[in-house]
Amino acid sequence: MKFGIIGTGSVGQTIGTRLVKNGHEVKMGSRAAGNEKAVEWIREVGGKSSEGSFKDCAQFGEILFNCTKGEHSVEALTAAGSDSLSGKILIDVSNPLDFSKGFPPSLLISNTNSLGETIQDEFPGTFVVKTLHTVNASLMVNPSLLPGEHDLFICGNSDSAKGRVKELLQKEFGWKNILDLGNITNARATEMLLPLWVRLYGVFQNPLFNLHIVK
Amino acid sequence: MKFGIIGTGSVGQTIGTRLVKNGHEVKMGSRAAGNEKAVEWIREVGGKSSEGSFKDCAQFGEILFNCTKGEHSVEALTAAGSDSLSGKILIDVSNPLDFSKGFPPSLLISNTNSLGETIQDEFPGTFVVKTLHTVNASLMVNPSLLPGEHDLFICGNSDSAKGRVKELLQKEFGWKNILDLGNITNARATEMLLPLWVRLYGVFQNPLFNLHIVK
Repeated sequence: MKFGIIGTGSVGQTIGTRLVKNGHEVKMGSRAAGNEKAVEWIREVGGKSSEGSFKDCAQFGEILFNCTKGEHSVEALTAAGSDSLSGKILIDVSNPLDFSKGFPPSLLISNTNSLGETIQDEFPGTFVVKTLHTVNASLMVNPSLLPGEHDLFICGNSDSAKGRVKELLQKEFGWKNILDLGNITNARATEMLLPLWVRLYGVFQNPLFNLHIVK
Repeated sequence: MKFGIIGTGSVGQTIGTRLVKNGHEVKMGSRAAGNEKAVEWIREVGGKSSEGSFKDCAQFGEILFNCTKGEHSVEALTAAGSDSLSGKILIDVSNPLDFSKGFPPSLLISNTNSLGETIQDEFPGTFVVKTLHTVNASLMVNPSLLPGEHDLFICGNSDSAKGRVKELLQKEFGWKNILDLGNITNARATEMLLPLWVRLYGVFQNPLFNLHIVK
């Protein structure tokens, strides 16, 4: 299958690498084709990896991942172009973190809106599915790094898009517990987990943790 | 021991009832002495229960619980009076929920501030400890209603106040896993869990759940 990874940071590289190792074609997108980090990533991962502009990447992928920093997501997706994004599933892994006042960060958007909704509003022809953004990149693609049960949240307006993403999360990454919260407005709740995440990271000094809902 | 419960709602009643059953003296405080719900609560629970104004309650208790609705907390505590609150531990169980636009609620304060901090700022002579507010009232006083391990968060500026509250949570209510996040600014993170809590409640249609941090 063909995937587009929008963004060249550690989240994009980790997801891209896993998908390439699973045998898929993966194009990493950045502001301009020839991005140094993307080229270096291809050199390391090999396989069916490639790179290009945000637009190249969005046009290439059947399913897209938004792995840009939250503060730049709308700009990057606008550069990809709503035509290239239209009709496609966009898995939004970004968080609207504001580090301008240091650590721990606050959120640029929260409470009565979310980045997931903002992206869905900007690109109404795209099926935005918010997930994976509440765990560290290594856990995103390898949840068995933690013992026992732990949970991933998913939300989005399209049930069929969420169904395809759940299947992908299970098959490609090994996720077992995926909790559907409903439509994309529920991204408010999961993005608002990040302030707790960054504090737990501060306490544990280790990003390998996740939440389990005990009932 | 003498406890003051500020607020007559189900959270205050549940905590007060458990403490009375544990043999403690508990005064429930409301806007004016003789509050119907407080009088009814005393009739039901018996023991060393009593009621009075917010000020009566704050003066009576060696340790106080803020169980008012978040939107009324500062007003209720102001009525109790900073003199009555001074030098005492105030366990802040409130959440700044805004139901004015229906369900799920948003938060009245969030992201770069919290209700816990607001209360600490308004009453600098009081040792505000934020905890218990992330679980349903029944679980607050009986965490063994859920199987296995699950976690409670605590934060506040005074280590000795947090130490006393942890002891109380363990001894009176049976909490085992209590995770100290640091000073009162960390209330931002735990109050921002409420948007997820209300959505999970919507999905499960049952308030008996909690988070466990898997490492």
